[in-house]
Amino acid sequence: VNKNSSIIESTQDYIHTHTLLNMGDTVIIGVSGGPDSVALTQILNELKFALGLHLHIAHFNHGLRKEAAQEQHFVEILARDLNIPFSFGKSVENAHTAQGSTEEIARHQRFRFLIKTARATNADKIALAHHADDLAETVIMRLIRGSGLQGLRAIQPFTRIENIPFIRPLLCIPKEQILSFLEDNKRTYCVDRTNEKTDFFRNQVRHELIPLLARTYNPNIKSVLANAARNMACDYDYLDKEAQAKYQQWAKTKAGHPGIHFSLNELKQCHTAVQRQIFRKTIAGLKGNTRKITFSHMNEIENLIQVRPANSIVHLPDAISVHKTKTELLFTKQSGSRGPNEKQG
Amino acid sequence: VNKNSSIIESTQDYIHTHTLLNMGDTVIIGVSGGPDSVALTQILNELKFALGLHLHIAHFNHGLRKEAAQEQHFVEILARDLNIPFSFGKSVENAHTAQGSTEEIARHQRFRFLIKTARATNADKIALAHHADDLAETVIMRLIRGSGLQGLRAIQPFTRIENIPFIRPLLCIPKEQILSFLEDNKRTYCVDRTNEKTDFFRNQVRHELIPLLARTYNPNIKSVLANAARNMACDYDYLDKEAQAKYQQWAKTKAGHPGIHFSLNELKQCHTAVQRQIFRKTIAGLKGNTRKITFSHMNEIENLIQVRPANSIVHLPDAISVHKTKTELLFTKQSGSRGPNEKQG
Repeated sequence: VNKNSSIIESTQDYIHTHTLLNMGDTVIIGVSGGPDSVALTQILNELKFALGLHLHIAHFNHGLRKEAAQEQHFVEILARDLNIPFSFGKSVENAHTAQGSTEEIARHQRFRFLIKTARATNADKIALAHHADDLAETVIMRLIRGSGLQGLRAIQPFTRIENIPFIRPLLCIPKEQILSFLEDNKRTYCVDRTNEKTDFFRNQVRHELIPLLARTYNPNIKSVLANAARNMACDYDYLDKEAQAKYQQWAKTKAGHPGIHFSLNELKQCHTAVQRQIFRKTIAGLKGNTRKITFSHMNEIENLIQVRPANSIVHLPDAISVHKTKTELLFTKQSGSRGPNEKQG
Repeated sequence: VNKNSSIIESTQDYIHTHTLLNMGDTVIIGVSGGPDSVALTQILNELKFALGLHLHIAHFNHGLRKEAAQEQHFVEILARDLNIPFSFGKSVENAHTAQGSTEEIARHQRFRFLIKTARATNADKIALAHHADDLAETVIMRLIRGSGLQGLRAIQPFTRIENIPFIRPLLCIPKEQILSFLEDNKRTYCVDRTNEKTDFFRNQVRHELIPLLARTYNPNIKSVLANAARNMACDYDYLDKEAQAKYQQWAKTKAGHPGIHFSLNELKQCHTAVQRQIFRKTIAGLKGNTRKITFSHMNEIENLIQVRPANSIVHLPDAISVHKTKTELLFTKQSGSRGPNEKQG
């Protein structure tokens, strides 16, 4: 019996169930050199013939740590070892012009590099090594920071960024199983200690909160959280599809009038849950994301529709306004503020 | 300035927003004598004239603790003090024939007593004293034990049991505010120490986990959890209404054939999230609840529909079976096992 068969079969089943890969796909694997991405590389390499995959390893050198050069070298050797083409990218210097934390900027640059590599190689998918423990941690992190259905999906097996499919084939695999797979295969990997310093919140959740919950309340806490996320992803998908259909039908732009208009009568026809999702879509369309938009803002918009008189206005973060007229609800973004495409990723 | 005005106004707003009470309602207040139910009694008494309420205090004496008689006496005095009619019930001896933990049996008997009192007095509503901290605790308890959208709603302001409306007007009020209200009004109340022993899980969450989360991760943890629950209640309501419409349209019973039938073609038309909710409804219809039905069971039913050949069967807890025929999905409950109405509450 091949002792790798279990993790490889589970990954293959997961890929199949979620249609993550098609026969003949070219796949960029994002490889940091850490255990998760090394395991992902090995597993996809084992599935290469069965799935007709063309693999390509992409490593982004953040240059944030002194070990960065060693890690890049390690990944290069791994690629040569498995006979997989290899690309690397390096952190650019204009990081000071970008907004957000060092961590956010690094993440953004890595995504840009992966997307660039995918375009350059005409790849079909970008594969990332998130696993079931990451999923469980993210659920509890989102809940603690404040999140609804959308956020509690946490990490999804299939997403698109700038129309490029990102897949996470290990999302069903517990970290423990990844580590024993690496051990069984005598695969070495880099240990990233900086990660433990920079993402303080995640590391506290990983090393303190989840072990505490497992010890005190539920030994299966990780799978329970992962299942909750999967369930909510399914429910969210339904809500989102219904809202998307209504959005396409109802959202109007008018020549000479900036912003997005809705008929109050049409909005009032649909359930509050769908209304809220339509508002989130509208706001994301205007400002590129729904950051800083809270539960209370949604309540304010509902209150505007239902209770307040015509000509009332609700002001939202990032210069978004919602005007109520006699017959319409109008979402606008004050000009001069950041456009929808300036920061994403 | 009346220093009670804030809690009373918040409660009145909440009652209004969720249409918990109508002018002239007769309301049974479930009063244990603890701080929450004493505050609820006082607040509803203050709103009595504004809302034209007819109040009635109902106290259930579990007889589980030696203080039970004192508590009953305390509530009787409170009722006399506020000039509110008073009823009490006592735990019956046949508790050994009921199933579940002492706590579950006590809870069940209390519900039966409240419903009986509501019927006897022709009451419109039963009011219970759950508050925002109860809501936050329940969210995290449900998440830890494993729950989806339905469970994460946690506690709702308005529910029906046996067609009797139960309302929770304090669900928007933090416990802290209840305690200062009682202090400001020099209202005494009973302290229930047994509660802290019997509901071990809730008390750990209340006294250890939530303070830890507030200290380490988010000082607003309680309101964040309560908001998550409210958001999910809204999303669930939408999903449930859509599923209910499909259920009424598609679920068939056939003369001479036990169980509930669906056309496979019809089921396949709808989103997985709606399918799952239809299955939950069907199972609840057959066995009275969806206890013991897990995430995996839902996956098994989906797998049955999508992958397995005709004449396959999935066996679920409490003698529920799901048969796939060439054209139908048939849910049945093996006879001889417990019927749908034998245990509820």
